Amino acid sequence: MSSPTETVPVWLPTDELAHVRERVPMVYVDAVPVRVDHLGRVERVGLLLTSRPDGTISRAVVSGRVLYGETIRESLWRHLAKDLGSEAEPQLPASPAPFTVVEYFPDPQRSGFTDPRQHAVSLAYVVPVEGHCEPSQEALDLTWVTPDEAVSEGVQQEMTGGQDRIVRLALAHAGRLP
Amino acid sequence: MSSPTETVPVWLPTDELAHVRERVPMVYVDAVPVRVDHLGRVERVGLLLTSRPDGTISRAVVSGRVLYGETIRESLWRHLAKDLGSEAEPQLPASPAPFTVVEYFPDPQRSGFTDPRQHAVSLAYVVPVEGHCEPSQEALDLTWVTPDEAVSEGVQQEMTGGQDRIVRLALAHAGRLP
Amino acid sequence: MSSPTETVPVWLPTDELAHVRERVPMVYVDAVPVRVDHLGRVERVGLLLTSRPDGTISRAVVSGRVLYGETIRESLWRHLAKDLGSEAEPQLPASPAPFTVVEYFPDPQRSGFTDPRQHAVSLAYVVPVEGHCEPSQEALDLTWVTPDEAVSEGVQQEMTGGQDRIVRLALAHAGRLP
Amino acid sequence: MSSPTETVPVWLPTDELAHVRERVPMVYVDAVPVRVDHLGRVERVGLLLTSRPDGTISRAVVSGRVLYGETIRESLWRHLAKDLGSEAEPQLPASPAPFTVVEYFPDPQRSGFTDPRQHAVSLAYVVPVEGHCEPSQEALDLTWVTPDEAVSEGVQQEMTGGQDRIVRLALAHAGRLP
Repeated sequence: MSSPTETVPVWLPTDELAHVRERVPMVYVDAVPVRVDHLGRVERVGLLLTSRPDGTISRAVVSGRVLYGETIRESLWRHLAKDLGSEAEPQLPASPAPFTVVEYFPDPQRSGFTDPRQHAVSLAYVVPVEGHCEPSQEALDLTWVTPDEAVSEGVQQEMTGGQDRIVRLALAHAGRLP
Repeated sequence: MSSPTETVPVWLPTDELAHVRERVPMVYVDAVPVRVDHLGRVERVGLLLTSRPDGTISRAVVSGRVLYGETIRESLWRHLAKDLGSEAEPQLPASPAPFTVVEYFPDPQRSGFTDPRQHAVSLAYVVPVEGHCEPSQEALDLTWVTPDEAVSEGVQQEMTGGQDRIVRLALAHAGRLP
Repeated sequence: MSSPTETVPVWLPTDELAHVRERVPMVYVDAVPVRVDHLGRVERVGLLLTSRPDGTISRAVVSGRVLYGETIRESLWRHLAKDLGSEAEPQLPASPAPFTVVEYFPDPQRSGFTDPRQHAVSLAYVVPVEGHCEPSQEALDLTWVTPDEAVSEGVQQEMTGGQDRIVRLALAHAGRLP
Repeated sequence: MSSPTETVPVWLPTDELAHVRERVPMVYVDAVPVRVDHLGRVERVGLLLTSRPDGTISRAVVSGRVLYGETIRESLWRHLAKDLGSEAEPQLPASPAPFTVVEYFPDPQRSGFTDPRQHAVSLAYVVPVEGHCEPSQEALDLTWVTPDEAVSEGVQQEMTGGQDRIVRLALAHAGRLP
């Protein structure tokens, strides 16, 4: 139901964004990119190597803010294209319901998901991706790991702020948690 | 995972709220209160008669803003207690995933869900409620209708801004859409 | 997790099938084929014109029995290929959870979903389909209708045994119930 | 939609059951009993100590066959009452959709979920339970463990045939997988 009068998504200057971040929760989307076989079974999980809000360089899934005037689907598409490159072909889910809701708080004790900058409510989706993917812009690297590798101690320790848990929840949703 | 250091939810003065509402999407929750039988089947849907953002007096489900520092579950609890009274006993779902996401825009063409005040992203839940319910504070009335009545033309026309559609989506999720 | 020792799906002779059908519920899958846009929004629903268990020629979604030894994903794939042709490219969902469970009973009063032959428990999925589709084998026709058309009185009356309700539940799950 | 003409669930003699078990997949339900706080968060998971189809005495969730003529909700209720006692008050979910589908095969390589007796397709639900619970009939014991304990190596090793994985998938669905 887009229309000629649809609102143009609004970017905020840095100081404005800092101002609102102290007053209301931000809306975010998290997308766990996966490669699936012809029967839809998850074979690989895509993990970015990227600079995180907590100052670390860590493995993470695709994540970003939903802008004023932007739909959830448009935001998912924008962040996936930004992080996986323009040749990636994400298959956005037919249902708008996320598989889980991730609540990020500055306080690490609050929910186990942390973001020192803000309180954010993130809708999390598993997104099968076809086509060639390459890390673009801020991501330093993109690796595709098997479900077993994704939950291995080595890989889980490379994720901070609860990103490791998002990956496990996503694999469980897909019936592929080892 | 609550803690002694948990953030106190932040209320905003009216002008502050107006300011941020023009800059970022707001996080909301929608709760469709239902009465269920001992097997969990929805028998009744609770509809409030209330003053809506569009200026009408209309039938609606429980809905409200998530405050800075407040979890989704705390917010659901607060809005259900406010609208159904302190003797209501809502059974919040074990899973944090909403059954659908409702995107409200000022522009009625954008998604079919409208709120003239803001762009809001609302997590929608079906919430079985036990105990005595009575409309409190802003609600003028609370009626429990059957699934058949809830989707009847008469009742649907008493709902504005897409509230009728939320009720149909909730009934479908519960397998009770006639 | 297929393996060299995997069980070969077992077909039953007609009299054997009749025998077990009177003793245990059958496992079925229902797949609602959809065309989606690049953002994953449902634009069309695929309806077969086919001979139904109740003896009518009616519109219906893809539906079929899960064989002994066959996984749900293999069964979905087999029935979609059989009904939509070998050039159809179904995108099976990453999650094994159906959006609803349809319980068919011989008695039309029991659940509203009827099958005069048996008690069947069917796992229902919304399946985006790419590629060329053509009705194969038993289906007489395949039509792609918009969500509005799918719930119109004319189309709904062409569906029997609760198939119209499955289509509405699927559209609701996809956030596209008008 | 029960009715006076509703089919009476059909029990099968042992040899009849053995016969159909070799011909079609059986319909099962799995219920993971949980204790939740007033906000719906899972605090404890209920694990039975019981004699399993593989001949071991192991920890397991509530599980059982759906009879001919029985609805999924009736079957869930029957098995929960049988295993947790008549004073248990299970809160069956409003939605008929399971959080996952568990496919049991005799071959342990097929899906990771095994049942030497049969191919079974099981609809799995997380079920909050109130009231007094005590193991009845075949169960030797019932223990309530925290999410952390449930996924600890000690407890996970007491579960066979994939029961440990069902518990992890259930906790993930509830957002409580550590």
